[in-house]
Amino acid sequence: MPRTGGAATRGPPQVNTGGGTAPDKLGHMAATHTYLTGIQTSGEPHIGNYVGAIKPALAAAESSDTLYFLADYHALNSVKDPAKLRHSIRSVAATWLACGLDPERTVLYRQSSVPEVFELATILSSITSKGLMNRAHAYKAARDRNAAAGNEDLDAGVNMGLFNYPILMAADILIMAADRVPVGRDQVQHIEYTADIAGTFNHLYGESYTFPIPEGVYPEGEASILPGVDGRKMSKSYDNHIPLFLPENKLKKLVRRIPTDSTPVEDPKDPDTSVVFQLLAQFADAERTAAIRKRLEAGGMGWGELKNELFEVLNAELTPLRERYEALMHPDSELDAILAAGAVRARERARGVLSRVRAAVGID
Amino acid sequence: MPRTGGAATRGPPQVNTGGGTAPDKLGHMAATHTYLTGIQTSGEPHIGNYVGAIKPALAAAESSDTLYFLADYHALNSVKDPAKLRHSIRSVAATWLACGLDPERTVLYRQSSVPEVFELATILSSITSKGLMNRAHAYKAARDRNAAAGNEDLDAGVNMGLFNYPILMAADILIMAADRVPVGRDQVQHIEYTADIAGTFNHLYGESYTFPIPEGVYPEGEASILPGVDGRKMSKSYDNHIPLFLPENKLKKLVRRIPTDSTPVEDPKDPDTSVVFQLLAQFADAERTAAIRKRLEAGGMGWGELKNELFEVLNAELTPLRERYEALMHPDSELDAILAAGAVRARERARGVLSRVRAAVGID
Repeated sequence: MPRTGGAATRGPPQVNTGGGTAPDKLGHMAATHTYLTGIQTSGEPHIGNYVGAIKPALAAAESSDTLYFLADYHALNSVKDPAKLRHSIRSVAATWLACGLDPERTVLYRQSSVPEVFELATILSSITSKGLMNRAHAYKAARDRNAAAGNEDLDAGVNMGLFNYPILMAADILIMAADRVPVGRDQVQHIEYTADIAGTFNHLYGESYTFPIPEGVYPEGEASILPGVDGRKMSKSYDNHIPLFLPENKLKKLVRRIPTDSTPVEDPKDPDTSVVFQLLAQFADAERTAAIRKRLEAGGMGWGELKNELFEVLNAELTPLRERYEALMHPDSELDAILAAGAVRARERARGVLSRVRAAVGID
Repeated sequence: MPRTGGAATRGPPQVNTGGGTAPDKLGHMAATHTYLTGIQTSGEPHIGNYVGAIKPALAAAESSDTLYFLADYHALNSVKDPAKLRHSIRSVAATWLACGLDPERTVLYRQSSVPEVFELATILSSITSKGLMNRAHAYKAARDRNAAAGNEDLDAGVNMGLFNYPILMAADILIMAADRVPVGRDQVQHIEYTADIAGTFNHLYGESYTFPIPEGVYPEGEASILPGVDGRKMSKSYDNHIPLFLPENKLKKLVRRIPTDSTPVEDPKDPDTSVVFQLLAQFADAERTAAIRKRLEAGGMGWGELKNELFEVLNAELTPLRERYEALMHPDSELDAILAAGAVRARERARGVLSRVRAAVGID
């Protein structure tokens, strides 16, 4: 596992230059791309998030100029309980660090630590047509829900944080002059909007400053979707999930309780219709997976034994993550120092971009 | 005329405490009110603005804890020419200082110098319903114009800066914890919106922090509306205005060219139908005005002599303003230092409010 600590204690943080390249005059990175990943800060992660989102995002960062930010002001649109928000920001930061995010090689920061984002959002508002926002998927979905519920006011329950979301997201990306944004396919429109807004800015003010036009980086092929314990997609809303940092004894009990059919031990079993096997296949290595598949198909391996195997591989992979997570969640851990160091590096970059944008529009 | 310079050169700026009172724990001023006036930063001022807006606003600041800000990011919604924006911000700052704004006793700052405003606007967005914005007068007026023009897209030409304007204005006011906002009657809705949004925040987060609920301070009775040289209300859009800082020789020519009727010198004249007399009455003292009224009504005073009188009183009042304005507009003037000192004082105040707001919502 990559190292996850130390940024705050090894001298002044440096802007990540992606392996020796330096920013050019516009602050863009030469000969490399800048990746920016936004991290949702609400909700406790489960092993489906780990396999389907966190691991691929971290793998994508292996050799790049990469930034991760905790989207805490986006979360504020839905979370009005300050204690809950505070806890979940820390928890999500600790999760990604525990899963291998390296805060020395990449930059991890809280959105709220970079006030330049909000000033840029104000600037982008002045060049963004309201019509574009009217057509945003998330906003239209909220209107559709009101229509379906027979509500005459289609804007009922829509707050301006939701309506402005695409502008704030554009500011998140453009303030870092990021040109690659790893996101799910549901985010295609947001990336297109950001590209649109950047293009409008470049058209109006391009003599002084141009934003790089960002592109989405979408998962190739099918994303790994883990089944939940009931066979449907793993999701907290189905209450069929396995929390990522469940203590060992609770993890064991939860795995034991995964429903199975009553096929006797000695009978052959179809691995491809077994949730337990599918989960195992995501965590065991290829050799072990193949051997178990063979034994299930041949008969003689019971569900109980299969569950023991699943618990073993799960626990082997998750134990160091859980320990690291718990250590980071301690109030005296280095978590705050890591985020503070990330904020310094992120703001250095954001200040450079914003000062050029301000000069371009005539506010300087 | 009050002093207009020196804030930047007399030691560290102090937060204006309105005559010895100190901020309480919430940063509110005890036993006094905090006044905040927003200054539009587009357009060159004329003597109608001076009499109808600038002088009354400065008079209101005589004995209060008073802040003035140059609303440069509001201007960005309509001004896309950076050189023009840059010039007009300096010009408007120089105008108010030349007219008597005292940057030592009050605080003068640029909106763009207080990034806390934009972060607070983001926070306020999360608790502001879109329905409120849908009903805002300025936005509805834009839709009405589209409807009248037969445009099917009622949002055509509406940018998100316009749509978000009431939230940004609320942030301008609340970031300073201002409770008195001198504005024209056309701004009643904006003040109500700010009070609404502050009330929502206080309801949600009032255990940790409450905003003072701001009230508008509206002009008593009729505002002084100067006639333009053609008798209609003085306005740049009618091209009937007298620019405030017109050089002396051009001012003389412009006054000479004010249209009058052909009543002979020796005939009695009605002062109340004479544009020249009405303008004179705004600038001459009561005694001189009464004496001239008498002479006009008696006959024997011609329009030419009346115009000479008008030029004389106008020029006597405007010459020191014009000289001060021209000195401030010099690139090496103390203007930038005055604005920088104001920014330091404004930010000190804004930081205090924002840190409490952040803690209240759970972003800290």
